[in-house]
Amino acid sequence: MGGDLGPRATVEGTARALQSQSRLSACVFGPRALLAAEVDALPADLRVAAERLTLCDAPRVIDQAMKPSQALRAPRDSSLAMMLASIADGQADAGVSAGNTGALMALARRALGTVAGIPRPAISTAVPTRAGGRCYLLDLGANVEASADRLVDFALMGAVMARRVDGLVAPRVALLNIGVEGTKGSASVREADALLREFAGLDYRGFIEGDGIYSGQVDVVVCDGFVGNAVLKASEGLARMLMERVQATFEAHWSSRLVGLLARPALRRLKRELDPVRYNGASLLGLNGIVVKSHGGADAAGFGCAVGRAMQEVDQALPRHLARELDYWRRANASVACGRGVSGADPRRMDADNPQR
Amino acid sequence: MGGDLGPRATVEGTARALQSQSRLSACVFGPRALLAAEVDALPADLRVAAERLTLCDAPRVIDQAMKPSQALRAPRDSSLAMMLASIADGQADAGVSAGNTGALMALARRALGTVAGIPRPAISTAVPTRAGGRCYLLDLGANVEASADRLVDFALMGAVMARRVDGLVAPRVALLNIGVEGTKGSASVREADALLREFAGLDYRGFIEGDGIYSGQVDVVVCDGFVGNAVLKASEGLARMLMERVQATFEAHWSSRLVGLLARPALRRLKRELDPVRYNGASLLGLNGIVVKSHGGADAAGFGCAVGRAMQEVDQALPRHLARELDYWRRANASVACGRGVSGADPRRMDADNPQR
Repeated sequence: MGGDLGPRATVEGTARALQSQSRLSACVFGPRALLAAEVDALPADLRVAAERLTLCDAPRVIDQAMKPSQALRAPRDSSLAMMLASIADGQADAGVSAGNTGALMALARRALGTVAGIPRPAISTAVPTRAGGRCYLLDLGANVEASADRLVDFALMGAVMARRVDGLVAPRVALLNIGVEGTKGSASVREADALLREFAGLDYRGFIEGDGIYSGQVDVVVCDGFVGNAVLKASEGLARMLMERVQATFEAHWSSRLVGLLARPALRRLKRELDPVRYNGASLLGLNGIVVKSHGGADAAGFGCAVGRAMQEVDQALPRHLARELDYWRRANASVACGRGVSGADPRRMDADNPQR
Repeated sequence: MGGDLGPRATVEGTARALQSQSRLSACVFGPRALLAAEVDALPADLRVAAERLTLCDAPRVIDQAMKPSQALRAPRDSSLAMMLASIADGQADAGVSAGNTGALMALARRALGTVAGIPRPAISTAVPTRAGGRCYLLDLGANVEASADRLVDFALMGAVMARRVDGLVAPRVALLNIGVEGTKGSASVREADALLREFAGLDYRGFIEGDGIYSGQVDVVVCDGFVGNAVLKASEGLARMLMERVQATFEAHWSSRLVGLLARPALRRLKRELDPVRYNGASLLGLNGIVVKSHGGADAAGFGCAVGRAMQEVDQALPRHLARELDYWRRANASVACGRGVSGADPRRMDADNPQR
């Protein structure tokens, strides 16, 4: 029910994902009559795929303005709460929502819990890089402030994701800072740097400045949620402005209007290549379950990509690997992380406590 | 002596500024033999302008790696310290440096002091917006963390700058946050929001998210130095990547290579329009004197723009207006700012204490 385009984008996007992935089946949650109308309105080419779409009646909706604390007190028959419950009880392998991020985070944490002692999940998404690859940025807003320990958690979770989902052997991880010298930045960033330098088994590259996110030098960039959110949204705004200017420049003069006509296919290619839709789908990392947040502004194609992202995480059993690898890392670096109280945990028991859903 | 290109860019950029501004005269600081060699190497068209360039021998250089604390203990015959001393003793109306930002900030504060009880200057620069205007972003790294009071100072200083230098009657000011709802963000951001809402005489627009920096909705965006630095540098990195991709897209295929040839003038226009050089020059706001930081990566043209920026601030007597207007605002909003201890200050005395240099 969430997102700027509402269930139209959600239903059509899910149907598109079903069409392209024959092994997928999906439930959509919301007021049944409303969902049924959206299914009826689907383009003809999606009708067959839509037969694998189950409509799950959820009479209530968590709206965009609702605070997390209100969402936690709200009745449990909202589309968001019922979707999360279906993951918690094993009906679904993963959930995707375009709704209220704060409410999604709070309800997901309650419904699914977290792995490996992570107190609060982090939100992460990939951005394209100059090198033609991508870079994971986290946190994007779940943790407004982050202690050094939390930044270390983000670094480890980002590395696990890049390794499992993108198949990188040794993801390069960096901490976002206002300079590369060890004396710069806030106390928590400097302390996290000192901890990560001692960490065995992690390809930690030290501090990186903001432009390093897009340079391709590293695969994971870690920061607190305030900084990550501001950087990501500023990037969205700047990219929109630059693409508008490129278009306007080609339309400005008669001579270049002709060029613009000829250049249209090239511009279309470029837009497709840089399209945020390709990278749509932010993961709630650290949950004991798979939940992907689709951008509120995403259209049906974008929502379909977020569903694809969730499927990749299911294929890679991401929460189980997060639990295992975070525990392994902490044990291997017990002298660094000795204050965490997890160094003695038995990884098998941990797995039993935190079965991958 | 600072910047990636060293004195070559500084000397040529200053000569270019002298050429285009007949009322300007300039001193450059550094080892005299080195500067003289750069003047000798100037293109022929700059020779006449360069006659208005004075070489000031400064035997030492504050290098890029030096910490602010080391810079404060360093001998006072460095190019940076001597440049700032020339402002402090009234020889120069303003200073421009492409060197070590932290050292520049520390030495400038010692040499010039601050106005209106500002404990530490903020760094601010303008970015282009979708509406075709520009938006001031501050702080950009001088204040890694900022209390609510400091964020209020930044808002007022940004408003004075946009009003004086850009001639806006009522600059629209916003606080950068991770959401527009009052419940979001860090404690200092929420407290600053509450204070600014009560401020008479300021067109305060509340919270804005990162994409709002480029939207043209506001003229000043305020955040702490960590966030501002990360956002600005990420924007630089993203813009570089996007322009590379635009170029690469037009060069990728034979058909579009032809188009690329035809499109070259349009692309050149676009690059010029978005060129960071046009916006080069970050102001150290709150100093009792005018100091502009040129981007380390700027070439001669970019350094010349930073000199132009400094001249605008001299023409507008920016520090004097900052002192007066901050004092006025605080008096007019004594009930809001009552804890600041400045509400009883006499603006005439304040001016006498803080003559504009």
